Amino acid sequence: MRQPTVEDVARLAGVSRQTVSNVLNSPAVVRAGTRERVENAIVQLGYAPSMAARRLRTRRSDTIAVHLDPYSGGISGVVLDRFVHALTDRATPRGLGILVYAATDAQEELERLRALRDGGEIDRVVLTGTVEGDPRTDWLREVGLPFVSFGRPWGAERTVADHAWVDVDGAAGTRAATAFARGLGRRVAFLGWPRGSGTGDDRERGWREAMGEDAAEDLRRTSLDTVQAARAETELLFATTTVDAVVCASDTLAVGAHLAASHAGRSEVTVVGFDNTPVAAALGLSSVEQRPEQVAEAVLDLLVSGAEPGGSLIEPELVVRAGVI
Amino acid sequence: MRQPTVEDVARLAGVSRQTVSNVLNSPAVVRAGTRERVENAIVQLGYAPSMAARRLRTRRSDTIAVHLDPYSGGISGVVLDRFVHALTDRATPRGLGILVYAATDAQEELERLRALRDGGEIDRVVLTGTVEGDPRTDWLREVGLPFVSFGRPWGAERTVADHAWVDVDGAAGTRAATAFARGLGRRVAFLGWPRGSGTGDDRERGWREAMGEDAAEDLRRTSLDTVQAARAETELLFATTTVDAVVCASDTLAVGAHLAASHAGRSEVTVVGFDNTPVAAALGLSSVEQRPEQVAEAVLDLLVSGAEPGGSLIEPELVVRAGVI
Repeated sequence: MRQPTVEDVARLAGVSRQTVSNVLNSPAVVRAGTRERVENAIVQLGYAPSMAARRLRTRRSDTIAVHLDPYSGGISGVVLDRFVHALTDRATPRGLGILVYAATDAQEELERLRALRDGGEIDRVVLTGTVEGDPRTDWLREVGLPFVSFGRPWGAERTVADHAWVDVDGAAGTRAATAFARGLGRRVAFLGWPRGSGTGDDRERGWREAMGEDAAEDLRRTSLDTVQAARAETELLFATTTVDAVVCASDTLAVGAHLAASHAGRSEVTVVGFDNTPVAAALGLSSVEQRPEQVAEAVLDLLVSGAEPGGSLIEPELVVRAGVI
Repeated sequence: MRQPTVEDVARLAGVSRQTVSNVLNSPAVVRAGTRERVENAIVQLGYAPSMAARRLRTRRSDTIAVHLDPYSGGISGVVLDRFVHALTDRATPRGLGILVYAATDAQEELERLRALRDGGEIDRVVLTGTVEGDPRTDWLREVGLPFVSFGRPWGAERTVADHAWVDVDGAAGTRAATAFARGLGRRVAFLGWPRGSGTGDDRERGWREAMGEDAAEDLRRTSLDTVQAARAETELLFATTTVDAVVCASDTLAVGAHLAASHAGRSEVTVVGFDNTPVAAALGLSSVEQRPEQVAEAVLDLLVSGAEPGGSLIEPELVVRAGVI
């Protein structure tokens, strides 16, 4: 069945297209009787003013662009997916659409955003995974496209007032994890990523703050974010020093540490992960929950209220499990 | 910087808005010299005809609506997320956009699809998770909105020619899993979902076919799709009959079966999952990989070629692991 058009409404009401358009856009200029006739025709035909026409008129699409990374097969990718789900759940009742796009690097991402913006398909952006000196935030500010990032501005030349952002307080998460682990034994190790990633350094800081003077260098280990590398690194850790617990920068690292402990018969070693993924739940590992639903809510609040520079930190939550395996 | 408009182009070329519009939409009606002047102005100003205007003209948005379920915290949800990622990766180079939307039930989903369609925001749909007598497929056919589903038409009154679909051959997956397990021991049990779900019954069929006469009823168990329920059910299975292996309808069930086996000291029992999630990889469990990337490719092929009724089954792949835990 063909959708009714402005012409159909005009014909039924016995007026011109321009009059129909006036009823829709500037009803005050139309005489009451005429307006009523047009409105009746609109109701009778079930005419819906097209979103495309509205966009053309208002130059607004009320649609948010969100980047979807290629699926990497990893354990922690689920956090970003949860964030996108939560954003979608919450954008719909606010009358905002979510358009997802793919891009393999920052350059391609900028080109994609430019095309979407030029085409009038999006008028807001939610960035994920900010990095030091992020080229995307500079470009978005330059072209004046409102945006909020999940991830704070990283790097010496950036400040928290650089743009609108929401992030998870990673240091608070590892601080809570470390404090919990210290309740079970004094020597709490930290398994993180190689230095230089803002997120990773922040999570290490939480461990260091909770350990205070006990933050010995032989308790700090780094590994690539794979299960096998983390397992090997934890085996080295066990071989070189006394360890009561291992607080990890991700659940991927935690699975590696858990495997090392379990194969060494060290079931008394507490392993705490970060991200609270289904893997941590299945293995019975304690883990820091990032609460991506809260992040999505805060991101939308900022976006709707104008995306003014400045940010807010979401407090993560330690989920304690008994270790069923 | 303000984007150039049709008015800017008209002014620079010294023609009317209508002439610019003709150059863009019906160039044949414009004199060659005038056309060249307008085209030069378009290039000089970097004018991009807005997507909204094009949509209004063509009544096409080239945008696909895809439903995103609320995040359920489950183990297997990652398969649908992989599918959406793969769809996004592959739609972009084909010039198609992906708009994701939320809905908590079929009724809300229909209302949402209707609003997106009426607004001219989408002109194609990809459905996920078809159920018996799915109200969405009836409605989409009725309104003539092209769609392809990830999931075949289920139910007695539906045929494979009901609409365009792509699905994973679940029976082939559990057949392969069962054949593999039988190579290690004769008594292969099946842990599935309560009867009545098309997907679950299909996966059970694969086990039955591979077992032939050995498909004893005491080897077939059903459980809700939670780790704890599956663990309890597997403990009952171990208590009542001899079991060499357990083939499961999902990785969630497989984690439960694995926990039961591991706590009973039955490390010789082979557990095979379905979905090949990061949890299966972390636990070293063999699992059937659905290959959602292949599904996405096939769905887009069907959608682009006109979404004619009929479907195709993607052959899943058994990923064998040694069981590192």
